[in-house]
Order: sequence, then structure tokens, then C-alpha cells
Amino acid sequence: MSEVVRVAVDAMGGDNAPGEIIKGAVCALKANENLDLTLVGKEELVNEELSKYPDVPKERCRVLNATEIIEMAEPPVAAITKKKDSSIVKGMKLVHEGSCDAFFTAGSSGATLVGGQLIVGRIKGIERPPFAPVMPTQKGPCLLLDCGANVDPKPSMLVQFAQMGSIYMERIIGVKNPRVALFNIGAEEDKGNALAKETYPLLEKLEGINFIGNIEARDIPFGAADVVVCDAFTGNAILKMYEGTAKMLLGEVKNAIMSTAKSKIGGLLIKGALKSTMQKFNIKTYGGAPLLGLTGLVVKAHGNAKAIEVQHAIEQCIQWKEEDINGQFRSRMHLVDRTKKADAGQ
Amino acid sequence: MSEVVRVAVDAMGGDNAPGEIIKGAVCALKANENLDLTLVGKEELVNEELSKYPDVPKERCRVLNATEIIEMAEPPVAAITKKKDSSIVKGMKLVHEGSCDAFFTAGSSGATLVGGQLIVGRIKGIERPPFAPVMPTQKGPCLLLDCGANVDPKPSMLVQFAQMGSIYMERIIGVKNPRVALFNIGAEEDKGNALAKETYPLLEKLEGINFIGNIEARDIPFGAADVVVCDAFTGNAILKMYEGTAKMLLGEVKNAIMSTAKSKIGGLLIKGALKSTMQKFNIKTYGGAPLLGLTGLVVKAHGNAKAIEVQHAIEQCIQWKEEDINGQFRSRMHLVDRTKKADAGQ
Repeated sequence: MSEVVRVAVDAMGGDNAPGEIIKGAVCALKANENLDLTLVGKEELVNEELSKYPDVPKERCRVLNATEIIEMAEPPVAAITKKKDSSIVKGMKLVHEGSCDAFFTAGSSGATLVGGQLIVGRIKGIERPPFAPVMPTQKGPCLLLDCGANVDPKPSMLVQFAQMGSIYMERIIGVKNPRVALFNIGAEEDKGNALAKETYPLLEKLEGINFIGNIEARDIPFGAADVVVCDAFTGNAILKMYEGTAKMLLGEVKNAIMSTAKSKIGGLLIKGALKSTMQKFNIKTYGGAPLLGLTGLVVKAHGNAKAIEVQHAIEQCIQWKEEDINGQFRSRMHLVDRTKKADAGQ
Repeated sequence: MSEVVRVAVDAMGGDNAPGEIIKGAVCALKANENLDLTLVGKEELVNEELSKYPDVPKERCRVLNATEIIEMAEPPVAAITKKKDSSIVKGMKLVHEGSCDAFFTAGSSGATLVGGQLIVGRIKGIERPPFAPVMPTQKGPCLLLDCGANVDPKPSMLVQFAQMGSIYMERIIGVKNPRVALFNIGAEEDKGNALAKETYPLLEKLEGINFIGNIEARDIPFGAADVVVCDAFTGNAILKMYEGTAKMLLGEVKNAIMSTAKSKIGGLLIKGALKSTMQKFNIKTYGGAPLLGLTGLVVKAHGNAKAIEVQHAIEQCIQWKEEDINGQFRSRMHLVDRTKKADAGQ
């Protein structure tokens, strides 16, 4: 377990950069002796933040200057191709060239997805890298993939998402024999759109995963599956409806509590119980959302991530390396490099 | 406003049939003098229920015997084609042949969708009938269409959904100049899957609707649009995530309140305020979910609908006739009968 894990950290990404990013990175460094960090960002700003932590182990922490920042709202392809001196591009290049094992960012999701594909690059045989956030459910974490760029995927891609999701859930989140489900609009196998109908039989006959069939949206919040597979368009709808509905409803409950003097007192009395019940929906401990199937790990945290989430996400990179997740993908997924095959056929 | 509106009621559909269905139907009859009902179901059972209401205006209420019942879980196409003597098939036939203006059911959604297309039939020029439930949001009702059978629709179908949804929302729910949005995974017009990308420019140039652009899932619960248009696969994900998340979270809040003696007292103190805040999410007053674009209206209520919902749904049929919604569709949608065109071309 003492193998060195080298992580490139986007020091400039997210609402709380660079302060919270550097703080989280320093905490991770102190807690993990085999961790080696490269903080990528505006040198001056990063060093200024770093100077607040005189006890940082300098031999395991360096700064790589990147003068540009990719903003949240920038069109991702243009940003990745033009901003060569941005923290995302430079950090991902470290992974591509093998100088680092993983890249962490709390910056633009779009740029992370595009950069992951264009700069880091896919494992040979992986068709498309899925973006896989963890949704906290009533029964525990649920990995939802894809929530990335694959809005019109092929059935074979969903099969790979199921395999990668299952391995990740088992090895990183620690769920034994994870229940893998196909998102659909009914429980019966002949339900759904063309994609779902074609994917179902492929998942059903797939060895090495615990496929439990179709899952309907209303069962996801209750934790009816550990891994849910779908196209990224639907995945986005599921994830954002979950977030939006929770935010709106808990806001309404709060408004109700604040509406009268009597209910305010009631609110004080239930506060403790409510907080402890809602604790299980705290996703900070699960790290960030991984972009899977790349030659190195790319992890994306929420834009508003604080130091504790940054630390967990960086530690997720250590676990990923120690569990040799990419090795698992290669040995358990029977990957076929279609590029090579095509070349050989010519 | 004294024109007679003839509604066929599926007396056997839903968890509370025939009791609550008949009760709701009788209430609607008493409250609306221009309403004429045909209760379709097992004659003996329906008459037995009817006998509980000696003051029912018999001249405006008759019973049509139907010996079969389509169960909730039955494969819909087989059910509709084989159970010729079921309440759904017989009720829909009344609409098809023009004996009734509308059909109400709380029975199988699948059979309702299939029967609507196969038995009632589409308005000429309408490509596909969308199923359009109302979602209660923080700011008011939002019509989501399609949540029906069109899981892989064409852009032109989504355009018709937008038009029909807008007219329905304005005339039936009473929202002036309804804000129509295209569901998408980002606000920018170049976002999304192939369907969304192709549909956006069509909606943008469409006259007669108030198109406000793309809407992301997280904004739907907050009421950012009055009409949301999407394919039925995504529509189902949105609707069911909304229902599932609300059910799960409110259950968690309740569990928290019941967890300690202190929080139980707190719960009693906030109960009234919470109830009145949550009142706006009560969808019973909006009637049922319409299946739009058919030669007559088909309205589907929740399987667990009680008398009050049945009454509202039947009254929705009256309003639909009085507002001449199908006339509105025909005059405002520039419908082209493609069947005829194809014939003429031969």
C-alpha cells in the first residue's frame, strides 16, 4: 500500500478556489504519506495560499504554473482546444503523459468531459467514458451513469457503463455484489425506447455483474439499485430532478416552519432529529464524480466544494490506484480494441 | 354554455372502483346540469352503487353493461384488442362513434394510451397523441408532455405537443400566455441529444406559442415553465423522479419527527403550517391527465383516485367541450392531414 500515488490538482477550478482547494489538498497530503501532489494554477496565487500551511510536506507537493482559467460557462470544446495554458489542460496533460495517475477538479463539467476524452484519452477498447456521480438514496449511495456527454449512446456503451459502474461501486464505494439496473419506464423487459429495448438482453446475458433488470425512476430515491445505467440525457434528467425536487421541497418545509411563531418553536424541537436523519444524504464523504474508462482517473467535485470534499476526492484517487481499477477494467471487461481490429482488417 | 356534454365513465377502472367512481360521477351530475353520463361497467355492480344515490338525475345517467375488466398489469395492446367487452373498449367506442364527447378512466394507463389511438382515433393531422399530466410546482401547475407512449418521437411531434400543451394550459388550467419550454440538459440552444437539437429551432420559429427556450430538470420543481415538452421516456423519468423523491423525502421528514419524544412535540407544532404550505402541491383540483389530439377527449386519473378527483376530471371534460379545445387545435395548429396528402400524391 506504500506505492506513490501522483495526483494533479486543478487549484483554480470551482467557486472556492484556490483557498478551499489548497486547504483540502494539504489535508490530504498530511493524512496520506504515499500521496504526491502537483497543484496546477496561477503560481503566485497558489504559493500565497500554500504559505498559510508552513507544515506542508514540500517534497511531496509542487506547483505547476498555468496562467489561464477555464470559466464555468465557456463552451467546453473551444476552451479545451484554445486555452493551452489553463489549469485543466495542463493538469490533464500530466495524466496523459504519465507524470500523474489522476486529475482532480471542481471546475467546469463540460471542459472536464471534453478534456478527459481529448487530452487524457480512453483505455483501449472503452467506447466512451461515462461520468458517474453518486446519488445518496434512502438505502445508501447509488452510482448513476452516464451523466456526461453521451446523450445518444449505443447499447454496447451502456453495457460498458454497467461493467465499469459495478467494478467502481464494489471497489471504491465498498458495496458487495452491487445491484446493477437499467433505467426504464417500466419493469418489464420489453418496455422502453429503442436504446433500452436493445440494451436489456445484452445486460441480461452479461457475465460478471449482478443485473437486477429495469428500474423505474420512482424507485431510485428509495435505493432500489446500487448502479443505474442510462443515456446521459436521461441521466441528467434523473440527477437534476433529484437535486431540484429535494431543494425545492426542503425549502418549502423550512418556509412552513418559519411561517408562524408556533411552528418556529416546533422547528427548533425537530431540528436535531431532522439533521441526523438527513445525514445519510450527505454526499461529501463519497468524494467526487469520476469520469471512468480513461487512461488515468479524472474526478470532478461540485463547483461549490469545500476543503473536506476536495480531500475526500483526492483520497478517492489514491484508492482508485491502490485498487487498480483500470487493471480491473482491463481484466474483467474483455475489452476489444476496435481501432486496432479495423487496422488489421485493412 | 347549456350545450349538453356527454361523458363515458369507466366505472370499473382504478383501485377504488366502482364505489368512488360512481360517487364522483353522481357529484358531477348534480353540480352540472348540462352533463350527461354513460357509466360503463358490470351492470349489476354499477346499479347497486347507483342505488345508494336515490336523487341521481336518471334522465342524464345511464348504464352500459361491460362484462370484462382490463387489469392494471395486463399487456395493453393485447388487452385492447381482445377484451372487446371491457369498460375501456366499450367506453372509448362511444367516443369514436360520436355518442359521447369524452371518456374518463382511472384504470390502466397503458390500455388508455393504446385504446385512445386504436379506438378513439386521432384528429386528422395530429401525428401522435401525447399524455399530459399536470405537475404541481412551487409556482403553480406545469403540464408535462409527453408522458405517454411516444418514447422515440420526431421533432415535428414535439412541436405539436408544444402547441397542444399551450392551448390546453391556457384554456383549461387558465394560465395566460403559458411559458412553453423544451426539456434539455443545458440552457444553451446547441445542447442536448439529437432530438432536442433538432426540435429547438422549430419551436423557436413557431408562431402562436410563448417559447422560453430550454429548461433544465432542476428548475422544473420551482415552476420555471408552464408547459414542458419532451419525449415520453424522459417525461416518465421527470415525472416519476418528482413523485419518488417527494415521497421518499417527506417520508424521511416524518421519520425524523417521529424519532424522539422532543421531535414528536415539534411535529405537532409544525403540522398545521406544513399542511397549509403543502396544499399547493395537491393536484386533485386539476382533474386528470388528458390524452390530447384525439377526436374526443380521453382523461386518465390516478389509479387511487377518490370521488373528488373523479368529479374534477369529469368536469374537466365539460370545460374541454365548452372551450372547444379540438376546434382550437384545428384552427390554430395549421394541421396537415399527411394521410390524405400521401393518397393525393399517388
